[in-house]
Amino acid sequence: MTADRASRRSGGRAARHAARTAEAVERIPFLTRTLRPVEVVGDEGLAIIEDNAETLLETVGIEVGNYPEALTIYAAHGADVEGTRVRFPRGLCRSTIQATAPKSFTQIARNPENTVTIGDPHLVFAPAYGSPFVRDLEGGRRYATIEDFRSFAKLTHMSPQLHHGGGTLCEPVDLPVNKRHFDMVYAHIRYHDRPFMGSVTHPSRAQDTIDMVKIVFGDEFVDQNTVLLSLANANSPMSWDFNMLGSAKVYAENNQATLVTPFILAGAMAPVTAAAAATQTLAEAMAGMAFCQMVRPGAPVVFGSFASSMSMQSGAPTFGTPEPALMLYTVAALARRLGVPFRSGGNLTASKVPDYQAAYESAATFVPTLLAGVNFVLHTAGWLEGGLTMGYEKFVLDADQAGAAERLVTGVDITENGQALDAMLQSGPGQHFLGNPHTLANFETAFWRSQLADNNSFEQWELEGSRDPVTRANAIKNQLLADYEMPAFDDAKDEELREWIAVRKGSFPDSDV
Amino acid sequence: MTADRASRRSGGRAARHAARTAEAVERIPFLTRTLRPVEVVGDEGLAIIEDNAETLLETVGIEVGNYPEALTIYAAHGADVEGTRVRFPRGLCRSTIQATAPKSFTQIARNPENTVTIGDPHLVFAPAYGSPFVRDLEGGRRYATIEDFRSFAKLTHMSPQLHHGGGTLCEPVDLPVNKRHFDMVYAHIRYHDRPFMGSVTHPSRAQDTIDMVKIVFGDEFVDQNTVLLSLANANSPMSWDFNMLGSAKVYAENNQATLVTPFILAGAMAPVTAAAAATQTLAEAMAGMAFCQMVRPGAPVVFGSFASSMSMQSGAPTFGTPEPALMLYTVAALARRLGVPFRSGGNLTASKVPDYQAAYESAATFVPTLLAGVNFVLHTAGWLEGGLTMGYEKFVLDADQAGAAERLVTGVDITENGQALDAMLQSGPGQHFLGNPHTLANFETAFWRSQLADNNSFEQWELEGSRDPVTRANAIKNQLLADYEMPAFDDAKDEELREWIAVRKGSFPDSDV
Repeated sequence: MTADRASRRSGGRAARHAARTAEAVERIPFLTRTLRPVEVVGDEGLAIIEDNAETLLETVGIEVGNYPEALTIYAAHGADVEGTRVRFPRGLCRSTIQATAPKSFTQIARNPENTVTIGDPHLVFAPAYGSPFVRDLEGGRRYATIEDFRSFAKLTHMSPQLHHGGGTLCEPVDLPVNKRHFDMVYAHIRYHDRPFMGSVTHPSRAQDTIDMVKIVFGDEFVDQNTVLLSLANANSPMSWDFNMLGSAKVYAENNQATLVTPFILAGAMAPVTAAAAATQTLAEAMAGMAFCQMVRPGAPVVFGSFASSMSMQSGAPTFGTPEPALMLYTVAALARRLGVPFRSGGNLTASKVPDYQAAYESAATFVPTLLAGVNFVLHTAGWLEGGLTMGYEKFVLDADQAGAAERLVTGVDITENGQALDAMLQSGPGQHFLGNPHTLANFETAFWRSQLADNNSFEQWELEGSRDPVTRANAIKNQLLADYEMPAFDDAKDEELREWIAVRKGSFPDSDV
Repeated sequence: MTADRASRRSGGRAARHAARTAEAVERIPFLTRTLRPVEVVGDEGLAIIEDNAETLLETVGIEVGNYPEALTIYAAHGADVEGTRVRFPRGLCRSTIQATAPKSFTQIARNPENTVTIGDPHLVFAPAYGSPFVRDLEGGRRYATIEDFRSFAKLTHMSPQLHHGGGTLCEPVDLPVNKRHFDMVYAHIRYHDRPFMGSVTHPSRAQDTIDMVKIVFGDEFVDQNTVLLSLANANSPMSWDFNMLGSAKVYAENNQATLVTPFILAGAMAPVTAAAAATQTLAEAMAGMAFCQMVRPGAPVVFGSFASSMSMQSGAPTFGTPEPALMLYTVAALARRLGVPFRSGGNLTASKVPDYQAAYESAATFVPTLLAGVNFVLHTAGWLEGGLTMGYEKFVLDADQAGAAERLVTGVDITENGQALDAMLQSGPGQHFLGNPHTLANFETAFWRSQLADNNSFEQWELEGSRDPVTRANAIKNQLLADYEMPAFDDAKDEELREWIAVRKGSFPDSDV
């Protein structure tokens, strides 16, 4: 199929058209919603979930393996520590977070025009994160390399719909595990100029990330501003490990933001219900966010949720189904009540390729993402195969849909121009509005326009080769990479950064853990 | 592409699996929502739109071409008639509707188990309506025939997710225009036993439909009960024609329901804004629904809206974009305030084939359909190419997704079992929930399961032939048609019906208008 599709690809014309369309899109550094978030559980139900989360933290507590320093920090702030188990008096985590965690914060980008605000009522889109494989029409599915990582950094730079560079755009498995973070962070600094995420696979790699951004922004600036947002996943159920919590500590100490995200497939890491998945997500996330506040009060945190269902027949994770959407709405409401920024959602799918299933599941995740009031969307673009594969064409298709989001989250225009009453009164029954002055004054911006959708007649579409959206996306991807130009960067800083990396890389042996 | 895909179809195994899965789905005659409908415009904004609609009806009014009797009826009930223009004193339409139109009503099916309630808080799914073309992997795109119509009636009968038989499942262009309604209505009576829709292309054909259902249900029963719901489209902007309004009159006189639907592509039939499209939809629909109440107070009506955007470059209609979703939420709220059942939405797309675009656009329409509080969904399954094509595989794919709706509209279970607190307290950090008693007690019904999605590993999926969802849907379609059994029907009534049709068909010449 891959070879067949690639041979049908017509490259030039559509790609040039797409490039022209892309240029016409005005770049907005992040979205601001006016639409009220959708809630699916009432206040009483949310209070029950919050109460149950406190019971979990008080009774079961969290296990903190292999990280005595965290136990000491938790104990010093009022938690009850027994061995490696940490239990929390009711309300301790919540009050710790609410006392000092910012409701929203600014993440500074290397290019100030790309600086984002994370928190209500804003919305920031980042590419998908963490896939060991990549896929495109030319090469099919294969292990990701650092060249793929750079390509996705370039595509992010070229996509006006994405606001943030993300983090592990794909796993560069051609580099040693213990050194690949140098090349990833450098690529984020060099190949695009948007905000990005740091390494979390070991506290020493978090520290390397901090040291690198200090070269770019300066020591004092980094201590006083947030330039990194990094992802710490809980080991659900109810466990935090040394690497994640240790990395979070490094970032918090340096005033950098941590995205604290329980990863829950209900049925495996939590009971099979939406309310239970939300309860456990809240408990685990509060334990992590409270830790960050104990390390450095005021260090930015984002309440993250990655909650989905699974096939109870095969155990495989499922996406785009109703239950994860209900979980998303529920946890978003819990985050608003807690008063911290919220991350979830994206264009998620279990499908292996960008096919009908991938599209339906992605949309059925992305629409709730937009409606629920998410502030930071990590897996906006590229996600395939439950996160195992980063798709090039999927990235382009998803970024296109992200472009529609602003229209939705700003809601219905009810101004005089939005009402258009005069236009309707001046017109008569049976008279079309194509030439109406109101139409002429508004038509250029009236409707969001997809770069990928084909709205032509059947005959026209057939005449143009019956091209499918994936083939169209492939042409755009190739054009974007061909048109890519590296953003400007200070030569002296670049040299300093490269030298620092070379020295640091040479200071310890390669390893695959 | 079609031939290639057909040759890859593997038929047997997946189809048998799908059939088994279908059997396991318990048949619900219609859905009942507990989730609060999503609203995107506040009360103040909705009141402005309502006020503007009254201004439109008062100032511009509606044009009623070629139908003097309607003018007389409107005039007799207080409207201001000048020539063929009908203007309404402020509030006349609204008060006429609110005085007698039912908030919800029951549409009786030939099989009483399939009788539906249309109105809040319920949700009824019907197949797509009105396509002149059909498409499947075997035959590609072609003009529809009465055999296709019968096939879609059979598929509807075999699809537990669909509650209603719909109407013009496709246009049987092999039959003369002025007689095809006999075969369509007969197919609805005979090939499935769910509620359905009657002919609206001429008042005499509406009367034929009435006469046919009287043979099935009895004269008295039809007069006292609603067994038909038929679709009257306005000629937007602000016009109603003889065929549609005349058919509505026949149905209303006979106590049958009319789905009064302005069909608006904003930019062509209305200004380019969501608020204006909603205003005009409200005005046109109120004029039509008030007419039905003037004809027979209490005759059921459904407020319909088909509002979408268009490409301002090519004039082609577009679907699944943010603006139509905003229109849908807005008009649904207006219908709730008016106090009548509401119809809109479906799985709509401009794409020519069931590809990535079709899926994304369909989901981006269907999710708002479910959230907005729609009561009757006409184009739930099969829709392609802006309604020009009814797709066999698309039908199966859409029906599958309709199966997910119940989970979404019933929201989050916050009962003790839903909270699952004991399960979490009994479990410990790091212990999975797969064998937990709560999981074992709930896993069979915990998560909605798609018949079409492939959630297996990449390796498993590849081993099974890398089949795409459309190929999987094709196998299910063929299996459903092979497994189809005609529902029982009284032989004497069947004979009477066939004889009546033969006599009536012979009583006037064929015509293609």
